[in-house]
Amino acid sequence: MKMNAVEAGLLLNKVREVNPLVHNITNYVVTNFTANGLLALGASPVMADSRAEVEEMAAIAGALVLNIGTLNERTAEAMVLAGKAANRNGIPVVLDPVAAGVTKLRSLTAQRILKEVNVSVIRGNAAEIASLIGESAESKGVDAGASKGNVKDLAVRAARKLDAIIAVTGATDYITDGREVVSVDNGDPILTKVTGTGCLLSSSVAAFLAIEKNMLHAASAALAVYGTAAELAAADTLGKGPGSFQIEFINRLSTVTAQDLAERARFEKGGL
Amino acid sequence: MKMNAVEAGLLLNKVREVNPLVHNITNYVVTNFTANGLLALGASPVMADSRAEVEEMAAIAGALVLNIGTLNERTAEAMVLAGKAANRNGIPVVLDPVAAGVTKLRSLTAQRILKEVNVSVIRGNAAEIASLIGESAESKGVDAGASKGNVKDLAVRAARKLDAIIAVTGATDYITDGREVVSVDNGDPILTKVTGTGCLLSSSVAAFLAIEKNMLHAASAALAVYGTAAELAAADTLGKGPGSFQIEFINRLSTVTAQDLAERARFEKGGL
Amino acid sequence: MKMNAVEAGLLLNKVREVNPLVHNITNYVVTNFTANGLLALGASPVMADSRAEVEEMAAIAGALVLNIGTLNERTAEAMVLAGKAANRNGIPVVLDPVAAGVTKLRSLTAQRILKEVNVSVIRGNAAEIASLIGESAESKGVDAGASKGNVKDLAVRAARKLDAIIAVTGATDYITDGREVVSVDNGDPILTKVTGTGCLLSSSVAAFLAIEKNMLHAASAALAVYGTAAELAAADTLGKGPGSFQIEFINRLSTVTAQDLAERARFEKGGL
Repeated sequence: MKMNAVEAGLLLNKVREVNPLVHNITNYVVTNFTANGLLALGASPVMADSRAEVEEMAAIAGALVLNIGTLNERTAEAMVLAGKAANRNGIPVVLDPVAAGVTKLRSLTAQRILKEVNVSVIRGNAAEIASLIGESAESKGVDAGASKGNVKDLAVRAARKLDAIIAVTGATDYITDGREVVSVDNGDPILTKVTGTGCLLSSSVAAFLAIEKNMLHAASAALAVYGTAAELAAADTLGKGPGSFQIEFINRLSTVTAQDLAERARFEKGGL
Repeated sequence: MKMNAVEAGLLLNKVREVNPLVHNITNYVVTNFTANGLLALGASPVMADSRAEVEEMAAIAGALVLNIGTLNERTAEAMVLAGKAANRNGIPVVLDPVAAGVTKLRSLTAQRILKEVNVSVIRGNAAEIASLIGESAESKGVDAGASKGNVKDLAVRAARKLDAIIAVTGATDYITDGREVVSVDNGDPILTKVTGTGCLLSSSVAAFLAIEKNMLHAASAALAVYGTAAELAAADTLGKGPGSFQIEFINRLSTVTAQDLAERARFEKGGL
Repeated sequence: MKMNAVEAGLLLNKVREVNPLVHNITNYVVTNFTANGLLALGASPVMADSRAEVEEMAAIAGALVLNIGTLNERTAEAMVLAGKAANRNGIPVVLDPVAAGVTKLRSLTAQRILKEVNVSVIRGNAAEIASLIGESAESKGVDAGASKGNVKDLAVRAARKLDAIIAVTGATDYITDGREVVSVDNGDPILTKVTGTGCLLSSSVAAFLAIEKNMLHAASAALAVYGTAAELAAADTLGKGPGSFQIEFINRLSTVTAQDLAERARFEKGGL
């Protein structure tokens, strides 16, 4: 099976047919946007971060997202518990290492999760992924820093070292298991002007993992769907601003079709 | 007094005149949407969930909402404290048992609130209400499950067993005190594609309870106003998607009139 | 240097050029709106409220915002830690005393912050500012109460007593260091129908403090930019409702220009 627009369209349709339950332990800035984005895409979001219930919730979900923005001691603990429960039940886990490398708490929590939980996919910008493997990249708060090195090579090194699928997103996205690399060249710069677009992207990857076992393909399809919806929304709201884009993007996540992917998705797959 | 569109319109106007303060202890997914929805409707929202202040806040509110989505130990405790303070001050309490039955924490917390607090109205979907009285209904995460049994009968059984007004919402809503049943047949399926529409509905019921002592009428009017605004917003944004609907729904909550209710509200009231 | 529309336009352009990192410890109702508003304005928002990371985050920020809505014991402690770290690093601190005077927790926390942290600017409505200096003003929940006294005089008394810049916002805003007073007469009443517009205003003031040392000018410029964007958004969405306004306001924060300020900003500066 080769990753292409047709395959991505089939996976999109499957998300909408299955409505997978995606359990998010995420930061309190993006909860509403994430839930609405997942609903628009066709998934079924649930948020729960109490240690007293995350194991039960993760066990009935199709996928689990651990997002370390606005962490605290209580939720960090809940993430590890939920991750272990997902592992016991064979449920894929996505880690979004928001601002890893910026504070010790975030770096240590990301490391702890990677040590105690079998993470399926890590989705972050170049600075965040670099920090996970002890490399440095320019970083400024939670914004995507432009890495000075080669982003594709960074992704491959991280995938091998962390034994997980890595999705480094930026102007071009690279998804790799350390052997194969898929690049996705969709999206629009206005995504960087709306908070939580990276977080929702991680949750969208989780929705695709819930319905497709080939994780490299699932993650790549999610990125292409997301980027295509963003391009359509950006075209619809050209010149208006990020408020209008945010709303139209939710619209487009619900209306983007396999046909739109056939016309716009730009995948490239190659060796290393 | 018979519940009808004219009565609902009068209550809507009274909400806008009185601007009742509604104290919400709610989940962190829906806070912004709930506050903006209450403002649009004409109420005055306040959010506070610290044990150190909820009693004071509940005591000055016109109504209190306890919503168990994204619970934790701290906020569960705060809900009980706030509920008791509301009871001491004669302030109506709405319980939204989000995903009761899905995890033990949610079921036990809902049961604890029902035991320690005199709850005026419980607003939930069929699965949630069924779980509160030990019955089962199909449930999947926090989505509204379609109950296999007769929803109206479920509502009556729950009202009698829990000694509260029950509002079971779905394609048709049933509101009952265990003796009389009002059905409301407004709304639009796109409401299920926007997160927090159930939560905001519970808070809207609270706004009406704050200004009308006949709780069956207050709750029924709130549901009809909400469903009518949703119908108007769905018509305005037909074919666009849930992003546009969410925004237009807030608009319509602020502009829906007694005249709109006269044209669209579909109440039915009968015996058992 | 005299505060006027030209000056405000220069500061707006500087915010967009510098993209200052603004660290917000704020209430969970407004996080998404605040982050999107700051991004639209040209700043770079970060949210972090764990005691384990706020000192590091505040130390790398251009400004810190402490907003006491939806406080709890954990976040109150984090605010003090972050505030002290900001002070040690010479980083300006904005306090938004949401609903100070309404509950003991809020009043005591505001007092504690003012005692332990050197606060640069306090932005609130008349009731909140009055409560900080032991005066009373009409207050109802978190809504802006209309003060019976003279708001300008209140601002001056508070500035002298609290040794901080005070920005009392309402129909007309007054900004003062206790010696000079700038009034800003921009904005639109629909701002009171969208939750978090006061909170985002405080965070916008922080963005301007991060790029301009004359704090009276920075705060005044932020208020004029904010009010001008609101006027443009209100005109664009006339008759639609608060949902549309909220979105268009975010758009306008990103597109408002120095030229718009030249046409609309209404400053007045005078002695006491």
